Amino acid sequence: MSQGTRVGVALAGCGVNDGAEIHEAVLTLLALDRAGVEIIPMAPNIPQMHVIDHQAGAPVDGAERNVLVESARIARGPVLDMAGVGADDLDALIFPGGFGAAKNLCTLAVDGPDMTINGDVDRLVKAMSLAKKPLGFICIAPALAAKSLGELSPRITIGNDEGTAGALEALGAVHVECAVDDIVVDDANRIVTTPAYMLGPNIGLVSKGIDKLVAAILAML
Amino acid sequence: MSQGTRVGVALAGCGVNDGAEIHEAVLTLLALDRAGVEIIPMAPNIPQMHVIDHQAGAPVDGAERNVLVESARIARGPVLDMAGVGADDLDALIFPGGFGAAKNLCTLAVDGPDMTINGDVDRLVKAMSLAKKPLGFICIAPALAAKSLGELSPRITIGNDEGTAGALEALGAVHVECAVDDIVVDDANRIVTTPAYMLGPNIGLVSKGIDKLVAAILAML
Repeated sequence: MSQGTRVGVALAGCGVNDGAEIHEAVLTLLALDRAGVEIIPMAPNIPQMHVIDHQAGAPVDGAERNVLVESARIARGPVLDMAGVGADDLDALIFPGGFGAAKNLCTLAVDGPDMTINGDVDRLVKAMSLAKKPLGFICIAPALAAKSLGELSPRITIGNDEGTAGALEALGAVHVECAVDDIVVDDANRIVTTPAYMLGPNIGLVSKGIDKLVAAILAML
Repeated sequence: MSQGTRVGVALAGCGVNDGAEIHEAVLTLLALDRAGVEIIPMAPNIPQMHVIDHQAGAPVDGAERNVLVESARIARGPVLDMAGVGADDLDALIFPGGFGAAKNLCTLAVDGPDMTINGDVDRLVKAMSLAKKPLGFICIAPALAAKSLGELSPRITIGNDEGTAGALEALGAVHVECAVDDIVVDDANRIVTTPAYMLGPNIGLVSKGIDKLVAAILAML
């Protein structure tokens, strides 16, 4: 890893139920900052699938929020529109989880293995892979790797949920069970994954997995 | 500190410019979870002063959000309504910062030293102080201590901003300059403060101050 390393963090809104999982996103930023790399937060400029009232646990009728605008809350200010980001702009790219990854960045939460994926997410994941640049996927975000890079049979984890693992295997991925405080490394494809809040149960354990993921990503540079 | 220690975390929404500062809140939860204590997230059930588009850095005309509902994003689910929380329910209480602390929990951002404070925040801070239970205030949140406990001349820090420090001193507080990765401890009043993003400049340094604040709070139990 050289000084001036640029690591993208791709966000999907702000909140576990309709956006990026906030703890996972912040823990990713913390680990990257401690490593002294340049953090490049980004998000697609698209409407959220819906807005969830996190107190009531239910959708809010008629409410609309934008993924880019809400992601800026986690970044404490403007984030890049993913439409303008290419593999040349980054040395590595990490996707925190949260339902936003499965509702806004792709449609796994609605369509299962028949899901579609956001065009810019798909383009950038494929471009990073082609450039042999490391990719990290946290929690449910490995679904994006399964969809974009299924032909490469990526070895990934979402913890131990059989239904979700089956959906990702239907897309071409090879699922590996993993504990919350650990990671799965696919050296051939330069992909690192950790279950995080797919398993929980608390932020302390989730942080251990994310710290390992960030360290493994940076060790590939 | 005994097992079963209950530490309240008082949130002010979700986002640095109109709510609780997300990094500060998550870092507080992380430090508390690592210490093995029970975390009790809470917020007042009131409208936000306004909604800021964090991408554009400007208020959103006509937008309305609720402090309790948005705080639940940071907690990953329901938080307690502060109106129902008393000092008997907690062993310690910590307020992360963010503009929400100065816009929703009090009106410092608008009124300076002429500020008013939310009734439930004021009641709970005073009750905790009377019960000699430790209180932590991060970033701009020490304004709440100055307003509620000014008669006790609390020794606090918000970093080194002279204007803000002057406003808090006008309320009775004694301001002490402090680095971002350090804390100010008022042993007599059992109050701990750290500047966090009042000074920044990055999450790694902010985490050091918050880790110290949580350790100092728990050491008082």
